[in-house]
Amino acid sequence: MATTGSPFSAQPYQGISTFGRRPHTRNLSGVDVAILGVPYDSSTSYRSGARFGPRAIREQSLLLWGYNNAQQVAPFEVLNVVDYGDVDIIPVDIHATHQAIEQTAATIQQAETRLISLGGDHSISLPLLRACHKQHGPLAVVHFDAHPDTWDEEYPTFKYSHGTPFRRAIEEGLIDTAAYLQIGIRGPTAGPQDYADAKQLGARLITFDEAAELGVRNVLSEIQQRVGPRPLYVTLDIDAIDPAFAPGTGTPEVGGFSSYQMLQLLRGLGDLNLVGADLVEVSPPFDSQHITAILAANLVFELLSLMARKTTK
Amino acid sequence: MATTGSPFSAQPYQGISTFGRRPHTRNLSGVDVAILGVPYDSSTSYRSGARFGPRAIREQSLLLWGYNNAQQVAPFEVLNVVDYGDVDIIPVDIHATHQAIEQTAATIQQAETRLISLGGDHSISLPLLRACHKQHGPLAVVHFDAHPDTWDEEYPTFKYSHGTPFRRAIEEGLIDTAAYLQIGIRGPTAGPQDYADAKQLGARLITFDEAAELGVRNVLSEIQQRVGPRPLYVTLDIDAIDPAFAPGTGTPEVGGFSSYQMLQLLRGLGDLNLVGADLVEVSPPFDSQHITAILAANLVFELLSLMARKTTK
Amino acid sequence: MATTGSPFSAQPYQGISTFGRRPHTRNLSGVDVAILGVPYDSSTSYRSGARFGPRAIREQSLLLWGYNNAQQVAPFEVLNVVDYGDVDIIPVDIHATHQAIEQTAATIQQAETRLISLGGDHSISLPLLRACHKQHGPLAVVHFDAHPDTWDEEYPTFKYSHGTPFRRAIEEGLIDTAAYLQIGIRGPTAGPQDYADAKQLGARLITFDEAAELGVRNVLSEIQQRVGPRPLYVTLDIDAIDPAFAPGTGTPEVGGFSSYQMLQLLRGLGDLNLVGADLVEVSPPFDSQHITAILAANLVFELLSLMARKTTK
Amino acid sequence: MATTGSPFSAQPYQGISTFGRRPHTRNLSGVDVAILGVPYDSSTSYRSGARFGPRAIREQSLLLWGYNNAQQVAPFEVLNVVDYGDVDIIPVDIHATHQAIEQTAATIQQAETRLISLGGDHSISLPLLRACHKQHGPLAVVHFDAHPDTWDEEYPTFKYSHGTPFRRAIEEGLIDTAAYLQIGIRGPTAGPQDYADAKQLGARLITFDEAAELGVRNVLSEIQQRVGPRPLYVTLDIDAIDPAFAPGTGTPEVGGFSSYQMLQLLRGLGDLNLVGADLVEVSPPFDSQHITAILAANLVFELLSLMARKTTK
Amino acid sequence: MATTGSPFSAQPYQGISTFGRRPHTRNLSGVDVAILGVPYDSSTSYRSGARFGPRAIREQSLLLWGYNNAQQVAPFEVLNVVDYGDVDIIPVDIHATHQAIEQTAATIQQAETRLISLGGDHSISLPLLRACHKQHGPLAVVHFDAHPDTWDEEYPTFKYSHGTPFRRAIEEGLIDTAAYLQIGIRGPTAGPQDYADAKQLGARLITFDEAAELGVRNVLSEIQQRVGPRPLYVTLDIDAIDPAFAPGTGTPEVGGFSSYQMLQLLRGLGDLNLVGADLVEVSPPFDSQHITAILAANLVFELLSLMARKTTK
Amino acid sequence: MATTGSPFSAQPYQGISTFGRRPHTRNLSGVDVAILGVPYDSSTSYRSGARFGPRAIREQSLLLWGYNNAQQVAPFEVLNVVDYGDVDIIPVDIHATHQAIEQTAATIQQAETRLISLGGDHSISLPLLRACHKQHGPLAVVHFDAHPDTWDEEYPTFKYSHGTPFRRAIEEGLIDTAAYLQIGIRGPTAGPQDYADAKQLGARLITFDEAAELGVRNVLSEIQQRVGPRPLYVTLDIDAIDPAFAPGTGTPEVGGFSSYQMLQLLRGLGDLNLVGADLVEVSPPFDSQHITAILAANLVFELLSLMARKTTK
Repeated sequence: MATTGSPFSAQPYQGISTFGRRPHTRNLSGVDVAILGVPYDSSTSYRSGARFGPRAIREQSLLLWGYNNAQQVAPFEVLNVVDYGDVDIIPVDIHATHQAIEQTAATIQQAETRLISLGGDHSISLPLLRACHKQHGPLAVVHFDAHPDTWDEEYPTFKYSHGTPFRRAIEEGLIDTAAYLQIGIRGPTAGPQDYADAKQLGARLITFDEAAELGVRNVLSEIQQRVGPRPLYVTLDIDAIDPAFAPGTGTPEVGGFSSYQMLQLLRGLGDLNLVGADLVEVSPPFDSQHITAILAANLVFELLSLMARKTTK
Repeated sequence: MATTGSPFSAQPYQGISTFGRRPHTRNLSGVDVAILGVPYDSSTSYRSGARFGPRAIREQSLLLWGYNNAQQVAPFEVLNVVDYGDVDIIPVDIHATHQAIEQTAATIQQAETRLISLGGDHSISLPLLRACHKQHGPLAVVHFDAHPDTWDEEYPTFKYSHGTPFRRAIEEGLIDTAAYLQIGIRGPTAGPQDYADAKQLGARLITFDEAAELGVRNVLSEIQQRVGPRPLYVTLDIDAIDPAFAPGTGTPEVGGFSSYQMLQLLRGLGDLNLVGADLVEVSPPFDSQHITAILAANLVFELLSLMARKTTK
Repeated sequence: MATTGSPFSAQPYQGISTFGRRPHTRNLSGVDVAILGVPYDSSTSYRSGARFGPRAIREQSLLLWGYNNAQQVAPFEVLNVVDYGDVDIIPVDIHATHQAIEQTAATIQQAETRLISLGGDHSISLPLLRACHKQHGPLAVVHFDAHPDTWDEEYPTFKYSHGTPFRRAIEEGLIDTAAYLQIGIRGPTAGPQDYADAKQLGARLITFDEAAELGVRNVLSEIQQRVGPRPLYVTLDIDAIDPAFAPGTGTPEVGGFSSYQMLQLLRGLGDLNLVGADLVEVSPPFDSQHITAILAANLVFELLSLMARKTTK
Repeated sequence: MATTGSPFSAQPYQGISTFGRRPHTRNLSGVDVAILGVPYDSSTSYRSGARFGPRAIREQSLLLWGYNNAQQVAPFEVLNVVDYGDVDIIPVDIHATHQAIEQTAATIQQAETRLISLGGDHSISLPLLRACHKQHGPLAVVHFDAHPDTWDEEYPTFKYSHGTPFRRAIEEGLIDTAAYLQIGIRGPTAGPQDYADAKQLGARLITFDEAAELGVRNVLSEIQQRVGPRPLYVTLDIDAIDPAFAPGTGTPEVGGFSSYQMLQLLRGLGDLNLVGADLVEVSPPFDSQHITAILAANLVFELLSLMARKTTK
Repeated sequence: MATTGSPFSAQPYQGISTFGRRPHTRNLSGVDVAILGVPYDSSTSYRSGARFGPRAIREQSLLLWGYNNAQQVAPFEVLNVVDYGDVDIIPVDIHATHQAIEQTAATIQQAETRLISLGGDHSISLPLLRACHKQHGPLAVVHFDAHPDTWDEEYPTFKYSHGTPFRRAIEEGLIDTAAYLQIGIRGPTAGPQDYADAKQLGARLITFDEAAELGVRNVLSEIQQRVGPRPLYVTLDIDAIDPAFAPGTGTPEVGGFSSYQMLQLLRGLGDLNLVGADLVEVSPPFDSQHITAILAANLVFELLSLMARKTTK
Repeated sequence: MATTGSPFSAQPYQGISTFGRRPHTRNLSGVDVAILGVPYDSSTSYRSGARFGPRAIREQSLLLWGYNNAQQVAPFEVLNVVDYGDVDIIPVDIHATHQAIEQTAATIQQAETRLISLGGDHSISLPLLRACHKQHGPLAVVHFDAHPDTWDEEYPTFKYSHGTPFRRAIEEGLIDTAAYLQIGIRGPTAGPQDYADAKQLGARLITFDEAAELGVRNVLSEIQQRVGPRPLYVTLDIDAIDPAFAPGTGTPEVGGFSSYQMLQLLRGLGDLNLVGADLVEVSPPFDSQHITAILAANLVFELLSLMARKTTK
């Protein structure tokens, strides 16, 4: 039986769907970590639907029970975690939406509460990084993705969309490029300049091919080495993972990580100083029997566990 | 734009899914109506899955906005409605589950709060009727369904399941059979005795054939006439409606009501003394693009509106 | 509880899926009606998949229980019905397949066993009519469909496919065109000649528009009048019914009969001399939560009930 | 067999999916009608996905064959119809997108080519009406919808979205409100002011309730009477139709028109001066086995047939 | 061409769906192996639906053809295999259901017929082990699963459910714990005691992490070593496999075995004394295009092949 | 931003779906490679639906952007590629269809245009090989598949179907069996003779087991060695890949290649003389969220890239 009185004593199909059955509140007093939904998907270039991502991840998070055997920690016991609800987004205006995201994220972080955000499309990482940077200065960023997302413009003359956030973030000085890794990049691009540009901007671009060649352990060593004691932000585009394991996403790329490889990659971040994270591009209308949302909920659980283990040390 | 500050100022895909975005609380002070989920589906004879009914209906209820144009009332403004969450059910034990349902329902009704329950399979109506009977005595019951649910035993020697609740309720004296109507009955049965038994138990059994012949208005007249000023309980098995309009259910029967006919039937209960209701057998794993859950949310909204109109008179 | 010992005492999800849980046998001694699957779909012009029709209909037939309340008969008690299994079809050769169908159907009918066939695409009606004609001579045919299926050629120089069977049948003298009705015809065609040709071949073509104008009762009167005492074959293409009620078909046409209208049309054939029938074009890969297969199983149950009522008189 | 050489001589699953298998070209010389896709869905308030609407409708349009039996016309023979392809939209910017739509539509109409547009969400009707108004002056508008779409603001301070286009169009003088009908309106709204506002703006608002009471013929009479000889624009939000018949849409409302009622409503516009039309809010990720897209293709075929019949007179 | 006269000479979409197209009979005379369906799913803690497992596995088993190339044996030629049909289960009563299962299983095994059971949820393994123990005494058990299923109580005060069968079995002395291996365990649990308890009860718990580290060959060596000549029962919860390969299950856990790894694990049991087996928790309503059922059918085929190879030696 | 003016400057959901947004034309002047659809699926032995394969692959090909980072080439810039449309097939006649395929393919190849064909079921490879052989003589063939497809007859007395093309091709002398490799073979067969026959016909049959043991590099070495400078035809049955990665196919076999392994296998063919290819058995009605079609589009892109790299050397 589940620990009585724990948020997981009810069965997963019962009750109101907050993340991990944590209280839904905007009162941040004594709160260690807030889960924030950001249901914005108007900047996707292929399939929309990520606006339903936060809801689907919350729903499947009720399957998590409470103890992480791999990381040997019960994050909801170690940390005071709340579900902050969603940012109010304006689907017709990316600027107003980004402002609302930044403001909400900043409010949370100013309360000394760490933030894990659930997308929504990848454009949301830019305002999230802005808010995190305010609190922590330039950030080490571990960026799991199939795509570099460092285009200058995805739509002619438009600087903001889900293909450009990391170029903007670098231009704005939010990222410490000495500790910026893109991991899992693959698939066709507009041309060879896409990868070249990402590298020139300072990213350590590890394609999926290279990651497969290196193996999980060597990738983790390089992450550890580059990030070191810096404040770390993890941004995880679910399309870093192969569509067989994560079909519910906007721009799927074949030939990516398995779920297990991604679990290992997150678990291997154990000693780093994780100050914030987002998980984006889960698109439930394209999911298959919720397997993408279940995976996403588990990945957030791993991120929470990383924060919890750091706390207990 | 939605009324600012109303529960419906956010977009339907945003935020935590409580029914109608109402507060999730077990504090009944000043509460007029509570919405209660009863995610029990272990007594279904064909497709299981109704345990996910309450969650799916809550999710789609965020599409309701606030004002009922047909009934000309804004139920959430007139009534203080809360989402009470779910009964803790024990899927392996129908007796323990029925006790928990009865106890929870009684607690709510003893606080002078009216109750609308979301199933779950139809077996749950028995403990719900017991609790309602405690407060109101023998009940007039308008029972929309494809099946009479008045079998003596659905499984040999087992008296309790989703095919027997109304026989049990009549045996226990919970229903005033002078005002008990079964509406929409159709499809194959085990034999001619199924309908005969229901009639002998006192039900006014209106088959779908008869309803189609009579028309909505005449059916409503008969309901009005039989029920009169009695305390009325409405139990709505979603399979009363045709599978084209409500595929997401456990034992679909072809040739039933359209959504619009069911809306008219509910709206026509306007002057009656509705003291409680349930909507059961929504099975989301068998739904098609949520149309059954959307319909169910709208039907609950009509029930709430009936309660609200009565209040405003 | 279902009648103990009846084929329906088990729950619908239990056991081996034969039609109506009837014995699967090729022994026709004392058998009144045989159900035969004809899983051929290579002549469809749009969506294939009807090869899975017989299996899906059998599966959902376990939901039928045993007594037809509308027709007031228990067909499986009145008639000895068996599931004969499927014809061995050759998907790459329509001629060999048609021969196998004709031969199997003739074997059954020579044993004085009536036959209800489950398609498969509509091309199968031609060999089925041939076999039925052998036993009964020229047949009255009530043909429910969205399409006349009286093209001369659907594919250049090919005379046999799912768009041509009734022209071939008329040419071969299988149909008594004085008693041949096409009912529910609608949707775009190649030109005005499509309807004109059907009429010139002798069909009483009742478009859906005309049927809607006439109403079910008048359509039934006309059927009764034309068919009279002739041996009647009913061929029911599931696309006669609107895609909302029967999405799982190969060439859906919007704006057709509701399930209830089709039930009424079949039930209204009560006094006619029904000697054989087929139900075709159920395509499970395009079904939505089995609602088409459930409907098809019910329609076959109505056909069986018609045969049973005739028997009991 | 289909007319040889006609666009419909191939089977529906073969070849490149242009609307009605018409040539894909931007050369408007001698072109009577252009089909234009407008895959913009960033202003939807619930489910996104209408960006895939044009593609899905094109795909299912290959099922249309060529001759409209109800209207007795072969529109592709009478009219030179082309598939103009899609407007280049910018999902992050509704203003730029609306400009592109208006410009493309104006280019087409200036070539004396009539335009039928495939959405996309309903916000696109505003730029389409602007372009049509340039050519024809104030327009009679028959607007089929579940929602009035005459909000002032759907998102605070944002004037343009899928809930506001007809208020904007009226403010801009594009619509001759003496001949503006909203038909099929139903479902919950933010308050009673939603309908009141629409009426005050000049709309003849026919709720679904009223339409059901009046019947199709009386609704058509009123349309005929109000529109008269004015240049008519038809805008058809697929959610005017019940979700059983059209599940694939963004904000489904239960209790709407059947497919057949909508076919009758369009066919009844026969003598009017139809100068342009759009069909919007088809959202394929939420469709069920393509039935919504098939219906939409048929409705466009009816609109084309109306134009063709007028031409042949 | 398939071997003429073999059960696989028909195409997989043809005919009645018994397992491997074997005869459906309860006559056990001369029968080596019986396939038994156990469609009980009322004790699942998350998604129900496993009641449809036996039917779906039977249906996909028609795809198996007859010869196992990896094990180099044609099990249906070597062994007389029948499809025994399903246990009659009572969904509202786990005790009555377990008794029925035990009784049916005992009947089969007393006839010297080996038994492979198709679930159904994992609670069914308890009565199956009881029946097998009667015949063979304490059993070596190889248990593939994501979860230990050795909780004391899953629901307060209820000892029997799908999370507790192996604790009960050990308490009842059915399992020889010196030869009890749990393989593939992973995912969040209620606390660290879940794994600790399983180990204390005597299980050799090999987490997926450890299995991935060891590799298939070393896991097999350890199995061989521990099991030795003991009578072996294999219980395979399909959730041992990753949701990408087996989405159709009740409580999916990300990061599990691939199909190929599981095939290798089963094939590697070649020299052991396999006396019985079950495959559980296949939930077709949550399957994706039948891939879970196809996999399950293949895994049962491997189990049968193991039995056949042993027979031929 | 995508390269302006490239076929990929539009978003993937926009515009007409030709392969890679290349022009749809039958003018072969100056054309290097033609993409040809062959929507024939009447010879499949289990699930039909591959007739929708070409359309689905075209649709998802719009996601390809233009540059292949793994092969470092932009095939659409190096090669003049067109979408030739589909062969006109006759679903009821495999002979007429094969003739049409051969004729169309021969026309293309006689224009010195290389051909990549999209199936359709695997029977189409025979006429495609015939046409290719006309131009190039006996062909080296790399055949990725779960099944050898070298049966003599799949249906009694019928020589042509999707299980026999490579036996026929060898008999006709189209394949240089010294350079014929079957890779990925697995799953149950009718008997041991299936593999034995394939080997006796001259195939180097590499089962999936052997491929897993050898590893991708060794498999590629053997391919290189056997094929050498011969004209190479690649035929890729999508069921070579595991159903987790490619569920949308007719006869899925568990335990196959991952997407990444297949990408590596194709990329490793770099120095060979690829003169033609086909990709078959993609069955969209059984796909899951388009992941099979997306994979297929990427695999075709790899084949095109191989041709392009050869061109640039």
